[in-house]
Amino acid sequence: MADVLKTVWWDEVPCLIDQRLLPATLDIVRCEDLNSVIEAIRSMQVRGAPAIGITAAYGMALAAQRSTAQTSSKLLEKLAKAKALLDATRPTAINLAWATQRMLDVAQANHTLEVDQLRQRLLAEAEAIRDQDEAMCRAIGQHGKVLLAQSRNVLTHCNAGGLATAAYGTALAPIRAVHEDGQPIHVWVDETRPFLQGARLTAWELQQAGIDLTLITDNMAAYFMQQGQVDCIIVGSDRIAANGDVANKIGTYGLAVLAKAHNIPLYVAAPTSTIDLQTADGAAIPIEQRSTQEVTHIGQQAIAAAGIKVAHPAFDVTPAHLVTAIITEQGIAYPPFAEQLQTMVEAANAANAGK
Amino acid sequence: MADVLKTVWWDEVPCLIDQRLLPATLDIVRCEDLNSVIEAIRSMQVRGAPAIGITAAYGMALAAQRSTAQTSSKLLEKLAKAKALLDATRPTAINLAWATQRMLDVAQANHTLEVDQLRQRLLAEAEAIRDQDEAMCRAIGQHGKVLLAQSRNVLTHCNAGGLATAAYGTALAPIRAVHEDGQPIHVWVDETRPFLQGARLTAWELQQAGIDLTLITDNMAAYFMQQGQVDCIIVGSDRIAANGDVANKIGTYGLAVLAKAHNIPLYVAAPTSTIDLQTADGAAIPIEQRSTQEVTHIGQQAIAAAGIKVAHPAFDVTPAHLVTAIITEQGIAYPPFAEQLQTMVEAANAANAGK
Repeated sequence: MADVLKTVWWDEVPCLIDQRLLPATLDIVRCEDLNSVIEAIRSMQVRGAPAIGITAAYGMALAAQRSTAQTSSKLLEKLAKAKALLDATRPTAINLAWATQRMLDVAQANHTLEVDQLRQRLLAEAEAIRDQDEAMCRAIGQHGKVLLAQSRNVLTHCNAGGLATAAYGTALAPIRAVHEDGQPIHVWVDETRPFLQGARLTAWELQQAGIDLTLITDNMAAYFMQQGQVDCIIVGSDRIAANGDVANKIGTYGLAVLAKAHNIPLYVAAPTSTIDLQTADGAAIPIEQRSTQEVTHIGQQAIAAAGIKVAHPAFDVTPAHLVTAIITEQGIAYPPFAEQLQTMVEAANAANAGK
Repeated sequence: MADVLKTVWWDEVPCLIDQRLLPATLDIVRCEDLNSVIEAIRSMQVRGAPAIGITAAYGMALAAQRSTAQTSSKLLEKLAKAKALLDATRPTAINLAWATQRMLDVAQANHTLEVDQLRQRLLAEAEAIRDQDEAMCRAIGQHGKVLLAQSRNVLTHCNAGGLATAAYGTALAPIRAVHEDGQPIHVWVDETRPFLQGARLTAWELQQAGIDLTLITDNMAAYFMQQGQVDCIIVGSDRIAANGDVANKIGTYGLAVLAKAHNIPLYVAAPTSTIDLQTADGAAIPIEQRSTQEVTHIGQQAIAAAGIKVAHPAFDVTPAHLVTAIITEQGIAYPPFAEQLQTMVEAANAANAGK
């Protein structure tokens, strides 16, 4: 489908669209070694929880290929180190550690292979993670479009689109599915300061897909809710705790409170790889503090005087009681979430083990 | 006081700081004719409801001086036209029409003067409006600081500081007063997209005054409320309806809903010239729709793809039931506001008539 972007892929090495330069420039980054994969994730050349999971998986495959290890057990040592480095790049999104753990598990399960066969097995696993992510996104679209059936005007925050995943997106998946069904839909796109994922990425991505949208600054969302022009909100997630608390891009929590006050449903769309059953609730989710320069500068342009103190929590946690439903590739979970989330993760693991 | 900026003043013609260029450049604009006054207001070289009221009053004085009218009645005709042009520049802030009406009233009350004497009388009135605005701001500071006595962390939106008034500010006045009393206070400064009045103006102004601040993006406000790090919110206003509904910079309504949900008081600080007893409630306040380029561009830099649809309501209306108190130079009003607001306006009019 022409309107679906490829975000991260393998072409001898991990390749990705440099999302810092979009929409002005569509530039491809080729990561020639593990360090450049790490830097791509840290600098947000690639961002979006599922997309950085895929990138990290490719990073593990690349580390295996670049390693001079002569034995599988030596290679396993290298991979454990690579995982630690990759996991440390960004703390909030669990998909990253999920993907590197899955790669490590595969390496351990196949440690009897010849080392070059193991390298091939790891690349195949990374490709499977990528392919499954796209399939999960499409399943999220099919499940989620039912929830959007009554919604003419949907608001989204940040970019949980194709650019945040292998392709197609999480929060944007049900929107795409409705649009593909020929139903009318209009998206309010929060610009999403400071990194402007909404203005730069989501607006562009929806424009490419021919989906009607209006770009707004984050602080306009409440105004359009007050005017009755927002029927529902749909966002992605970087980590969903076992109880259904949702970590997502800074600003999501505020939207959730506003949604509640205006009696507007809030939907969270994410693959089961975003669910972290080991984290009991949102209080245990680490919130990444990013560079203050991302707030004080837009590109090279300063928007504040020098020496101003700045805060930059990159994520916030929306308590489960503000979430109307969680859409995964396994289906839709409603409050209370705990049991359904566990069932979904188990089903996903079983399906994966069966492949 | 070294830390108080002069925003708008008369030096043969109306002079003002070009607020579009702050904080990078401190540039003075001299308005040589009525058209340049109109353009200064429309383009937001000068902004902030009280400051544009003062600028419009100076514009009326300038129109009188530039007019070749030989009689006071001819001059009155010119002034009526000037008022219509000035009032049309920005629809939401009532201080503008309040100031031009006051100038016109003075002209009519003094129509028996020689035309040159009338010109002098009008300039004196504009100077009085400026001086009274600063005095009102200082009175707001003294009244309002009592409300802030228990607040270590105050959040503000947009710029309702010295740059939005003759000097000293409205929302920032109680903060300045607390600071001048030597009490500790820290301000969360919303950057206030799209025009970035918070990042560019408020942060700079507080920095100049030596007041502790942290700059945040608008969508971080809810996060810090959730963390218990916001004790109260204080904002200015562009128009307060007779029932206490408050029009202010876009984003204020969202903050008000969030404040309510977190049990945080919301204070509105404004001179009585901002109260519009002729407007029954917020539904009757016109909301200015500004250029979409202010959303899609920061300076000359595009942050969204070309052809993206954008909304830009520049203000929103916070219903009175979300406002904890309204601070004016006359004192503090609490809900229900209607009667107290009327009393305050009458007291201000009486004080002005007595001068």
